[in-house]
Amino acid sequence: TIIDVIEKQETKTSFFKGKNIIITGGPTREALDPVRFFTNHSSGKMGYALAQAAQQLGGKVTFISGPTSLGCPAGVNCVEVTSAEEMYEAVLSGFKDADLVIKAAAVADYRPKKVYDHKIKKQMAPLIIEMERTKDIMAELGKRKTHQFLVGFAAETDKPIEHGKEKLKKKNMDAIVVNDLTKDGAGFGEDTNIVTYINQKGLEVSLPRLSKLDIAYKLFELMEQDMKDDQP
Amino acid sequence: TIIDVIEKQETKTSFFKGKNIIITGGPTREALDPVRFFTNHSSGKMGYALAQAAQQLGGKVTFISGPTSLGCPAGVNCVEVTSAEEMYEAVLSGFKDADLVIKAAAVADYRPKKVYDHKIKKQMAPLIIEMERTKDIMAELGKRKTHQFLVGFAAETDKPIEHGKEKLKKKNMDAIVVNDLTKDGAGFGEDTNIVTYINQKGLEVSLPRLSKLDIAYKLFELMEQDMKDDQP
Repeated sequence: TIIDVIEKQETKTSFFKGKNIIITGGPTREALDPVRFFTNHSSGKMGYALAQAAQQLGGKVTFISGPTSLGCPAGVNCVEVTSAEEMYEAVLSGFKDADLVIKAAAVADYRPKKVYDHKIKKQMAPLIIEMERTKDIMAELGKRKTHQFLVGFAAETDKPIEHGKEKLKKKNMDAIVVNDLTKDGAGFGEDTNIVTYINQKGLEVSLPRLSKLDIAYKLFELMEQDMKDDQP
Repeated sequence: TIIDVIEKQETKTSFFKGKNIIITGGPTREALDPVRFFTNHSSGKMGYALAQAAQQLGGKVTFISGPTSLGCPAGVNCVEVTSAEEMYEAVLSGFKDADLVIKAAAVADYRPKKVYDHKIKKQMAPLIIEMERTKDIMAELGKRKTHQFLVGFAAETDKPIEHGKEKLKKKNMDAIVVNDLTKDGAGFGEDTNIVTYINQKGLEVSLPRLSKLDIAYKLFELMEQDMKDDQP
């Protein structure tokens, strides 16, 4: 309820107040030529909700977003990027001073190996597009991590919890938020989501279907607990 | 100027009044898996402006659009589609009764040959995507044409007029509107455009940089002239 949320904000302000929080959101676009590109169905709503909540909780928030129609939440420092490469540069440049990084963006894993200067003309022969891997931002953050608390998102259509746990370990994250794209009311474009929060100790918290903003507040509660536990 | 436009609307209402006009706009999306897709930079603004102008001129307008954030112009029958295949079906289903068809959509020429049910997992091996041609909607309309006046759009980065003329002939269009994507103020996402109208007799009319709505009204003037000339 609204009252719950307001109460939470008041009681929780203290922990995140003044903390440097980087949040990413939205899709990236990977050009094939000046007209065509690869992208994905991310609407950017989950990242936007996290940025809003983080700001309300007193954080100093940088929201790095791919192309969406959502604009910038009030009181937040917004950075617009297009490609996975630009996202990499923007996230890395602020990482050293960050206390918490939440990667909710749906960054392309692959991009066309060759980007054409001119629009590719239609031809009768089949078009073969060779794709190459983009830089793995989370894996890089996991390697460079000193004091930062790292949270990733995984959107899966197949064994979501299992794949989420693998990613969490492999990339040295502190927690991962898994969402099962096959569930109604979960995932891309929706105003609601159904997620499971998993931390490094193996704690799994499954939230019911909630608005993305309510999920954001719940996630900050869970992250606060884990960040406090991590403190020496 | 605004007054010119208003005068034009009043004097031109008679010709397009009650005519069945199909206009297409926006991009299409071609799925690779449930998360990833190919698309292009079309904002749908040119098609939207054409639908608005056609309705103002008294036409019975069907606007078939790919995914955009623009909504539906007042008084227009709007049909939402996602893929090139859906666009093909929607345009063909109304074609028989149409008097004028203007294809301003940026329909994908290619789509992934295989569409995966599950999100493709990242792998170390390079990803090769084999693309196949989508159906050529304009070529099909050109073959089936009886009384319909057919207008295409061509967005080019290389020899735009030359390529436009080739397309006009090859696909049996009545006119083509060519826009040179390399010019400032032309093309995708912009509120203005710079276009050249070319008809089957070889007439070329280059318009200066104008708002997309002003261009729409100018194009209806040119089409009216050509449609009158075509009448027995």
